Amino acid sequence: MPKQIDHEKRRKHIAEATWRVILERGMEGASVRNIAKEAGLSLGALRHYFSTQDELLVFAMKLVKEKVTARINEIAAHDLPPKEKVLHILLEIVPTNAETIREMEVWFAFTVYARHKDNMFDAGHDEIYKAIRNLIDYLDQIHLLQRHADKEIEGERLYALIDGLALHAMFDPRRVNKERIKRVIMQHLQSICVDESAKSE
Amino acid sequence: MPKQIDHEKRRKHIAEATWRVILERGMEGASVRNIAKEAGLSLGALRHYFSTQDELLVFAMKLVKEKVTARINEIAAHDLPPKEKVLHILLEIVPTNAETIREMEVWFAFTVYARHKDNMFDAGHDEIYKAIRNLIDYLDQIHLLQRHADKEIEGERLYALIDGLALHAMFDPRRVNKERIKRVIMQHLQSICVDESAKSE
Repeated sequence: MPKQIDHEKRRKHIAEATWRVILERGMEGASVRNIAKEAGLSLGALRHYFSTQDELLVFAMKLVKEKVTARINEIAAHDLPPKEKVLHILLEIVPTNAETIREMEVWFAFTVYARHKDNMFDAGHDEIYKAIRNLIDYLDQIHLLQRHADKEIEGERLYALIDGLALHAMFDPRRVNKERIKRVIMQHLQSICVDESAKSE
Repeated sequence: MPKQIDHEKRRKHIAEATWRVILERGMEGASVRNIAKEAGLSLGALRHYFSTQDELLVFAMKLVKEKVTARINEIAAHDLPPKEKVLHILLEIVPTNAETIREMEVWFAFTVYARHKDNMFDAGHDEIYKAIRNLIDYLDQIHLLQRHADKEIEGERLYALIDGLALHAMFDPRRVNKERIKRVIMQHLQSICVDESAKSE
């Protein structure tokens, strides 16, 4: 089905143009007209793929989410020591390079924007929360989580830590760089996990 | 100087109208025209107090910051056990009621907006970071912080936790309510501080 493939490819091309427009001009500038121009398409051609601005924005944001999810799944499939695996998954959620900071920025601008649109789009914060809750459960199942930990509260705490780091990586990438983010997350994992050297006894 | 007082009072009145407009329509809707209408003033009268939209926005945001700072200073002046004092200060940074959630929302919308304006306004994130670094130093000075703690990393970790909680309190106030926020912060303070019962030995 070459036509279908072309169609999806073109939609992705438009989504990427949308990200660039949001990064340059903010959501205020993300009009269908500006996006069409950035994508090198006529307004009519763009409307062929997305009939409304909201439809286009929702699609563009879904793509960001898919990129992050794909990266996380790749790490999850790797054969790594558990704590290291958790660290690397969390390092995919917090942006640590120019590309992922840009993704986060687009995501963020959209999330704030969507708050003034009734139920336009579930910003998918819940999915990150669930993913982090799963990581806590995983650490618990393999007996790495401290014995008397309150999983509910530890999930909420790790989720807040990760989103806070993501926010600061975006606002102040010079201070909150990859090395620093890694040290903070490692310190946190250390503090919620049992001492592995003691565990082997 | 009654005239000067009136002037400041009027500026505050306009700032409050600005907050309401941002909450209702987002930054997209925060035009001088809409704000004047919300404040019940003519465009000319508003221009008498603020000659540009940016000047008005910066003033409106400064007022939000002043409100938070005033609340924190009030708690700092209270005579409370150290850990409790730290907890209550942190609970002022994370919004836990309808009013402070609204403040946070205005602040946040502005912060995202200001990113596309060159050096319009230092969003003041650094001030919260410094305040939190000071809390860590304070805990250390009174020998409550764990002995081998890396203060640099613990400051960054607490800052991320607090801003993450603030973000989630704003996005999902039902789950991330005051009780839950308090439990998360208490758990965190517990984990970075020495066991006080052990300390008295």
